[in-house]
Formats: sequence, structure tokens, C-alpha cells
Amino acid sequence: MVTARAHTNIALLKYWGKKDINLILPYNDSISLTLDHFYTDTSVEFDPSLKTDEILVDQQPSAGSGAKRVKRVLNLIRKLGDSTMFASVHSTNHVPSTAGLASSASAFAALASAGAKAAGLNLSERELSILARHGSGSASRSIFGGFVQWHAGHDDQSSYAQPIQRNVDWDINLITVLVDTSQKKISSTNGMQSVVETSPFYPAWVKSAQADVKPMQTAILNRNLATLGELAEQNAMRMHATTFGAVPSFTYFQPQTLAILTAVRNMRKQGVECYSTVDAGPNVKIICASSDNELIMHKLSKIVHQDQLLVCKPGPGITYL
Amino acid sequence: MVTARAHTNIALLKYWGKKDINLILPYNDSISLTLDHFYTDTSVEFDPSLKTDEILVDQQPSAGSGAKRVKRVLNLIRKLGDSTMFASVHSTNHVPSTAGLASSASAFAALASAGAKAAGLNLSERELSILARHGSGSASRSIFGGFVQWHAGHDDQSSYAQPIQRNVDWDINLITVLVDTSQKKISSTNGMQSVVETSPFYPAWVKSAQADVKPMQTAILNRNLATLGELAEQNAMRMHATTFGAVPSFTYFQPQTLAILTAVRNMRKQGVECYSTVDAGPNVKIICASSDNELIMHKLSKIVHQDQLLVCKPGPGITYL
Repeated sequence: MVTARAHTNIALLKYWGKKDINLILPYNDSISLTLDHFYTDTSVEFDPSLKTDEILVDQQPSAGSGAKRVKRVLNLIRKLGDSTMFASVHSTNHVPSTAGLASSASAFAALASAGAKAAGLNLSERELSILARHGSGSASRSIFGGFVQWHAGHDDQSSYAQPIQRNVDWDINLITVLVDTSQKKISSTNGMQSVVETSPFYPAWVKSAQADVKPMQTAILNRNLATLGELAEQNAMRMHATTFGAVPSFTYFQPQTLAILTAVRNMRKQGVECYSTVDAGPNVKIICASSDNELIMHKLSKIVHQDQLLVCKPGPGITYL
Repeated sequence: MVTARAHTNIALLKYWGKKDINLILPYNDSISLTLDHFYTDTSVEFDPSLKTDEILVDQQPSAGSGAKRVKRVLNLIRKLGDSTMFASVHSTNHVPSTAGLASSASAFAALASAGAKAAGLNLSERELSILARHGSGSASRSIFGGFVQWHAGHDDQSSYAQPIQRNVDWDINLITVLVDTSQKKISSTNGMQSVVETSPFYPAWVKSAQADVKPMQTAILNRNLATLGELAEQNAMRMHATTFGAVPSFTYFQPQTLAILTAVRNMRKQGVECYSTVDAGPNVKIICASSDNELIMHKLSKIVHQDQLLVCKPGPGITYL
């Protein structure tokens, strides 16, 4: 039995739309920061006595689309190892699931890593990234710590993540503002697919996101918080713009999401270097230097409760427990 | 002295961006409904004893960009009448100004009509529409009652409004939900210009709005509330999507705006035929049959105060008092 721990990541340039639904190939490159706070521990054991895969997530038997995706990854591992053995999978999420905090990223990165090792495979990080991608696109990035780029690619083997800066040796962190941690009504998978199919803004989104890849790489390598933050906030707002254009129109924003976005803009006008990003959910992540955390959390206390706030520092790649 | 009354209008397909800033030529056709509730009374008198134009808006001397626009319309009237006389203008708005309720539409329609008549000109409705357009684009539509289309056109004389259905003989009205009637931070003029110049979504907006013109005409002529409402809500959401994509990103939405948009979507799921539209401001206008007003206002009472609600019926074109 092998246990792997993977941390979730927050996209600074978003993954938003698949050009190949089966292979999970995205339309554009994305760039993320792996976080220290939220992670998944997954244990995998291949066992000749099993008659089927046994999947427990947070001690509960898993069924439906989640289980289907786990089996898809296990099948790929079996294929690579030329094995037919079923596996028992135990996964524990330390991430509020389906709340726009990308629990699937850490879950499938941990599954791919633990599963491959349990099957006796000796995969490279790139191969693990490709394997994790088949469970969830953003999981391809959670193989690595720090700042990570997922190359969109054009086929299975060319679509993988790669580190931009593994060790984040400068002062950047996130303040996660939890607006609503209940299950969201439109999953990111369904939301992005609706946008790809019905939003007239989708082609401009892809072009805009791809154009920001090089400037974002440069901002990371130059440790330039202002440029990184501006690009990230702009990218997030454009991603959410596409949902307002879909048929039917929808949004992941909730009233408090808007209030926080406005507060961040206002703090910036007052000279505080902070920027918002929002995934496919209502929660806001504020990008800032940790030296500004206290000031920002104090200013936010007028509109949110302190227990909605959570500081996340840059986190590591896969570890085996 | 001539006094004219013009009513404001709400765009069902929005005017959002100028292809000629000086002539005020829009990129796409727009379609509106003139309302009965909000109007402007404007009196104009050309007086040989005046040394300059005297402009009073709501009893206050007008200066700045508003006064400049009034003078632009007066200059056009003087040119048409081959006159050099200055005018005294008294305008009274019965519209909360600069709150996304388009007070400029009724103001400049009333000014153009009263001014032309005071100058002894006998202009056609089309000529009045062109004249009003030079004060404010949406004013071109407020010359007419009922449902109105503004043809984008390609030069001064081809850009004018025209009635689609002057007498609205079927059950459609609006419930205006006043979220915030204070002066907005980004005027519609500045907002649309920022979007034209910086939002990657602008070209798709123009294409989408123009494509909806014929279906909207048909929906009006067929008295089809469902199609009219769906097209209007989709068009409004797409207009607001463009602002999220601008540099810098901005929005006219406030937290309560989002709450009301969600409430309208939810009422529709429960079978109530109601649709949202939002101009360049935070207030929401709910399109529905008047027979559903009570039910909708009751359901909204959980999230808004009754004094935020205002029923607006279809209104008339220019009248002279």
C-alpha cells in the first residue's frame, strides 16, 4: 500500500474549457500556485483478491461521476503496468469539496501518484502529470509545488504541467475568503462546457488567456507581485465574464463575492497591493504579500467574519507518506 | 416658449458603444420600450436679449459636460433655423438622475422637441430623433412611445429611431427595483468607451446584439413575452459581461443586483414568467405581465423593501404641454 499527499492549487491563469473532452485537453495553457493548506491523502493498494475497485472517499463509498473518474485513472495505471488487479483506494480530503477550491486537483494528483507507485511503476513527474490530468485537468498541476504551468498541448503526451518556480522564495500568499462552502449548483466541468458551447465570448477568452502566459511567466520569475496580481485578476474576471454570456446565462458569483471584489479594488486604490482571483465558485482568493495579511484581514472584517478567512502559503508537490 | 415632455425608455437590446463619438453613432441597433413613469419636462425660449444660453436643470444652473451637450443640441437647432439667438432652457427631471435609469434619454428628447418647436422649425419625428441623438444616444428613442428601434446607421442622417409598436395593446410592464439611486462611479458614456477600447469581448457583443434585432422585432410584433424576455435578459447579461473583461475590469452590479437576478431566475423556475434587464447601473428592471406584478413583488419582499419597487407601464412619445 502506498500513500501520497497532494496539495490543491489555485490557477492564476485559469483552465476553462476542453478542446478534447475524453483526453481532457484544454484550449489554453494555465498557470497555478500550489497551496500549503488544502491537501488530499490517498492510499492505493492493488490486491489480487479484489473482484472490483473499492473506492472510499472520506470514509464513504464513492459512486457516480467521481468513482468513474477514479476508475479511469486506475485503468490507465493497469494498462501501463500490464496488470488486471483491482485496487482499494482510500482518500481523505482536507479541502472543502466542490466549493471552488479545486479538491479534485489534489485528489487526482494524489491518486495518480499513489496508484502508479503501488503498481510498481516508476513514472516521471511529467508522466504523473499526464496521468493525473485524466482524472481532473487541474490535477496535472498539483504534481508540482510552487508556480506551475500546464501546457495545453495537442494530444495525450503533449498536455502536461511543468514547474515555473518550485521553491517560492519571495513573499506571496493568498487569503481565501470563504463565501459559501456548500455544494455549488453548476460544477466547473458543466460550467466550462456550457461556456464553450454557448458563450459568444469564448474564443476571445482563449486568445486573452493564452496571450497572458508569457507575461505571467515573466512576472513570476521577476517576483513581480503587482504584474502577477493584475494579470491574475484580469484573467479571473474574464473567465467569469464568459458565464454571463452563456445560454442560459449563469454566474458563480454570489452577492458577497461582488462585495469582496469591490473591497479589494478599493484597498488597492488606498495603496494596499492586493488582487482577487475567483475559481468556478463564489469564494474569493486575495493575492498579496504575507506582510499585508493583517492589514487586509482587518479591513475585510467590516464585510466578512474572521472565520471566513484562511491564509494559504505556497505549498509543495507530491510527497509520499 | 415651448414646453415638451419626453419619457425615458428602457433598452431591451442595449446601446453599448459608439463607432463615431462625435456624431454618436452606435455599433449596433438597439430596441427599447418607452416608459410612463419617468419623464422630463423641458421649456425652451429663444430670446434676442440673451448674451448666452441659460440652462437650468431642476432649478440649478447647469455646467460641465451636461451643459456642453445641451449647447450642442441648441447649436444644431440654430444651424437648422439659420438663427444666432441664444436660448433659455428650463428642464425638470422626474427621473432619479445618473442611476442607470437613463434620465438623459428623456432630457434630450424633450430638449430637441421643445427647442426645435421654439425655433419655429417643423421637424419630422425622424429629424427630431436625429437631433435628440446628438445630446444622448438613447434620447433618439424617447421621441416615440411604445417599442422603438434605433437604427445604428452609418452617418448622421441614417442613424435614427423608428417605432416598432407605438400602442402597446398587450400586457407587458416593468417592475423597477431600485438598488442604489446615488450617482454611479462610472458613467455609461465612460463605461462603454472603456469597453470598446479594452474589452476583448466587445466584437462578440456587437455581433450578438445585432443578431438579436430581428428575433426581438418578431417577438414584439407577436406579443411574445417569453421570447422578448429571454432575448432581453441574455442581451443585458452579455452587455455586463463586457465590463468584467475591460482593463481595468469593472462592473455596474452591486451585491443586491446579483441577489435580484438570482431571485428572478428562481421565480422563472417556479413558473413565473419574468425576466431581468440591467442598464449601466445597479438597478434591475423586471419584465413581466402586469397580472404577475403582485406575485413577483410579494416574492421579492424577502430581499428588498417595498419602497425599492416601482411599476412602470409602457409610455407615450413626445407631448407638448
